[in-house]
Amino acid sequence: MYPSSLEKLIEQFRSLPSVGRKTAERYAMAVLEMPEEKVENFAELLQDVLHKIKRCPVCGNLTENEQCEVCSSKERDRTTICVVQQPKDVMALEKLGQYNGLYHVLHGAISTVKGVLPEDINIESLFERIDENTKEIIIATNSTLEGDTTALYLTKRLKEYENISVTRLASGLPSGGNLDYADDVTLMRAFQGRIKQ
Amino acid sequence: MYPSSLEKLIEQFRSLPSVGRKTAERYAMAVLEMPEEKVENFAELLQDVLHKIKRCPVCGNLTENEQCEVCSSKERDRTTICVVQQPKDVMALEKLGQYNGLYHVLHGAISTVKGVLPEDINIESLFERIDENTKEIIIATNSTLEGDTTALYLTKRLKEYENISVTRLASGLPSGGNLDYADDVTLMRAFQGRIKQ
Repeated sequence: MYPSSLEKLIEQFRSLPSVGRKTAERYAMAVLEMPEEKVENFAELLQDVLHKIKRCPVCGNLTENEQCEVCSSKERDRTTICVVQQPKDVMALEKLGQYNGLYHVLHGAISTVKGVLPEDINIESLFERIDENTKEIIIATNSTLEGDTTALYLTKRLKEYENISVTRLASGLPSGGNLDYADDVTLMRAFQGRIKQ
Repeated sequence: MYPSSLEKLIEQFRSLPSVGRKTAERYAMAVLEMPEEKVENFAELLQDVLHKIKRCPVCGNLTENEQCEVCSSKERDRTTICVVQQPKDVMALEKLGQYNGLYHVLHGAISTVKGVLPEDINIESLFERIDENTKEIIIATNSTLEGDTTALYLTKRLKEYENISVTRLASGLPSGGNLDYADDVTLMRAFQGRIKQ
C-alpha cells in the first residue's frame, strides 16, 4: 500500500541486522522527514563507503588508504600483534589507549556450527606477516564458543614459533559483576584463572 | 579511528530514530558486507524516495502520483473520512480490509508539551475538503495525550457541521488483555465505554 519506491526502501532497511518491518518503516519515515541535502548526503556516503573502504593488506583492518592507520604509523610497537575478530574490536581496544602494538583482524571466527573454516577468514596472512621482530601475539577473540575455537587453533599453530610468546585476554567475572549472577562457565574460568595476591 | 567515510556513514545511521552508536556501527558494518549492487541500489532508493514521494494534495497521504491510491480510486466510499496521525496508520487500517472510505493524514498531532499547534499539522485542509457529500468523520488519532488533544480539537470544530456525524475509535481493554494488568486510564475508559449486551 505504500508507494513502491518507499516500499522498496523499507525492504532495503530490513536487510540491516535485527531490523524488522516496523523498525524499517520508522527508518523510511525518518528519511522522508530529513532535509533534502541530508538524504543526498546519505546516498553519497553509502557509495563512498562502497568505493573507498578496503581492507589493509597487512592486518585486514578497514582503511581508505594504502595501509591502515595503525600499520602505517611509525610510533607503534612492531613486536606485538593483537589478533581480533572484527574491526570494531580494534576500536574498542584503541579507545582504552593502553595498547601500542599492531593488530590483525580476522573478519570472523572459526565455527563448526556455521561451517566457517580457517581458510574462510583472514588467518593465513597472520602467519605470513610474522617475522624475526615478532615477540608477542595477543589473542583477543571473543569469549564465545567460536572465539575459543579460533584461539585454540591459533595457539596450536603458533607453537612452532618458539621465540614468540602467545597470550590470551583474561576471562573471568566482569567488573561490577556479582558472583551469584555469573553463569557457570564464567565462574569456572574466573576460578581456574585465579591470581595470587 | 574508523576511516572517515565509514565514520560519517555511522553518524548518518545515528540520525535514524532510536539508533545509538553501537547499532549504527553494526549497520555500517552490514553495509560493508553487502554486495556492491545492493549498496548502489540502497543509495538510489534514498534518492528515489526523496524525489518521487510527495504528499497527496487532498488527504496528505504519501504517494508517487498526482493523488494517492485511495483518493484516486473510484471504488471508495466518498462520504466518510477517517482522520489519522501518520501514513503508517493508513497502512494499519487498510490491512484490516474493513474500511472503504477516505482518509485524512494529519502528519502529527497537537501537542502543548512539544508546542505543536493546529496550524503546524495538516488540519486546515480537512475542513477545506468537507462538502455536502461528507456524512461521517471518524477520528482515529492515537489514544495518547496528543491524540486525545487533537481529537478534542477536531470534535469541537466539527460541531458546526450539523449534518456530519463525528465518531472516534473505541478505547478500552486490548484484546487478550487482562483486567488486572490494564493501567488506570485504560480501565477507566473501558468502564465508561461499556456496551449494553
